[in-house]
Amino acid sequence: MQASVVGGGAWGTVLADLLARGEHHVRLWALEPDVVERINRCHDNPRFLPGVQLHPQMRACADIRDAVRDAELVLFVSPSHVLREVVRSAAPHVDRTATFVVATKGIERKTLALMTDVVAGEVAVQAVVALSGPSFALEVANQQPTAVVAASTDAAAAERVQSVLSSPTFRIYTNDDVVGVELAGALKNVMAVATGIAEGLDLGLNSRAALITRGLAEMTRLGVALGARATTFAGLAGMGDLVLTCTGALSRNRAVGLELGRGRTLEQALAARDSVAEGVLNAESAYELARRHDVEMPIVRGVYRILFEGHRAHAAIAELMGRELRSEHDR
Amino acid sequence: MQASVVGGGAWGTVLADLLARGEHHVRLWALEPDVVERINRCHDNPRFLPGVQLHPQMRACADIRDAVRDAELVLFVSPSHVLREVVRSAAPHVDRTATFVVATKGIERKTLALMTDVVAGEVAVQAVVALSGPSFALEVANQQPTAVVAASTDAAAAERVQSVLSSPTFRIYTNDDVVGVELAGALKNVMAVATGIAEGLDLGLNSRAALITRGLAEMTRLGVALGARATTFAGLAGMGDLVLTCTGALSRNRAVGLELGRGRTLEQALAARDSVAEGVLNAESAYELARRHDVEMPIVRGVYRILFEGHRAHAAIAELMGRELRSEHDR
Repeated sequence: MQASVVGGGAWGTVLADLLARGEHHVRLWALEPDVVERINRCHDNPRFLPGVQLHPQMRACADIRDAVRDAELVLFVSPSHVLREVVRSAAPHVDRTATFVVATKGIERKTLALMTDVVAGEVAVQAVVALSGPSFALEVANQQPTAVVAASTDAAAAERVQSVLSSPTFRIYTNDDVVGVELAGALKNVMAVATGIAEGLDLGLNSRAALITRGLAEMTRLGVALGARATTFAGLAGMGDLVLTCTGALSRNRAVGLELGRGRTLEQALAARDSVAEGVLNAESAYELARRHDVEMPIVRGVYRILFEGHRAHAAIAELMGRELRSEHDR
Repeated sequence: MQASVVGGGAWGTVLADLLARGEHHVRLWALEPDVVERINRCHDNPRFLPGVQLHPQMRACADIRDAVRDAELVLFVSPSHVLREVVRSAAPHVDRTATFVVATKGIERKTLALMTDVVAGEVAVQAVVALSGPSFALEVANQQPTAVVAASTDAAAAERVQSVLSSPTFRIYTNDDVVGVELAGALKNVMAVATGIAEGLDLGLNSRAALITRGLAEMTRLGVALGARATTFAGLAGMGDLVLTCTGALSRNRAVGLELGRGRTLEQALAARDSVAEGVLNAESAYELARRHDVEMPIVRGVYRILFEGHRAHAAIAELMGRELRSEHDR
């Protein structure tokens, strides 16, 4: 199969490598000329995925038209805040009968659109497959066992992605609850910021576990209000990815939270980084979605206030802990 | 209030300290004479809780009769395999109108009784409160924020425990689903052994997140088959404690699993330890419960086979990963 991966960060590179190892013809579009050049010359991507040798059949392109032309499967994996622009530049050159996949996690600012909706809208197709779940790119590259979800309202498209991308160590389960899978992937980044804040305040592992538990509960509440299934949030794209992001290696989202917990401002916490953390962008969208649908999301609200309204981390946490004692089922 | 804590390990000591800090009169029974002596003389328990200064009003007793006599609240926290024997020795001396609490997590071997049933049976009372949730003892001692569950079919008893044991940093939520809370507490230790095995095999964080996710799913299936509520498993005593045990500091359960994953036998893995890991004892009970109620529990089955039937860890994991690809909702 002719496949195209649009986005040359760590995850895009690993997904392209998986396709190449599955004996598909893969072209990867990357924004950075040095990434394109290194992949084609040395079969590696030291900028985003240091230490990993890529499949020699993977080709990188600097021109997005070359990357997507004639592809039967097009997988987008750019950061959420540039996804629409990237898809728009690819759209005139894609074959609209292809299978479209998006591995970006997020909710678009202002429009509050999910990533599959952004792709579907720009390419003018009916169904897009969301690929999500607990998957540190480096572990997938190292062939450590990983299980993820391919979600689509088009069951045949999800099964196509499952059969094309699966390997003995990369397992893909299908799911028809796109809204649940996408919301979970976006919201877990907000929870990762919350976890980082708690770590910055040195609250310990007991409270981290409680935060993750309550975090999933409020993510599920929002999902159900938007028509998603609660069981999706109990699955790989929900609980699985949340647990990985909040307890695994320190992500950008948690690192930003950590600085906020230690008393720094958002500006200070972001200053040292070359890209915005997805959890910061998505906190605003999540807060707005909760408000519009009248869903109680105390953790999202706390993170939003710390990020954008100048609340002190310590006071926000005290508020969370100080809620009236009651039955667990009332929360 | 006159309160008694039966069991002088780390968790029993911390719970007694919490009661003493709440200005209750507390007597702690400990099996080890050196623990009793140190608590009364130096107000610490270096054997089980090194580095923590205890409230000076807490008294320790070597004789269980002295510890429980006239107590209005009796809290048992001995290891699961000796709980019945300990409760039996206390039973003739307790006031049966007291509030009885058990903080031991486990399922009794052979009888498959829950810990509240063991206590209720031996003391001959109707309702016992189960105290459970994500709570590393040392963090509670250090007053780091912690949230747990007090579960009982007797709502008034659960609320009594809530009001007596709660503090600004130790939050207790009530729950009437005793079966769910107790099963979750016992089963998470089996999942911790599984997580340790995966760590011993160096499978990485992606698969740990997937294992925890599927682990909670099968715990929930068993619970629902036994009349528990699925939401209990999504709460603090379920997901919360599971996440803490599988991702926090290395517990005895995970340490035993780690050695098994590295190819050692159960005998070798247990040889270096002075007490049996709860997850090992409970794997047998969990396996038997699943069998009797015809509930699919592939992780429990895998752990059981590795522990008691000489299966190799690597083969068991390969079997888990090799299951046929399908929809997430079919699992």
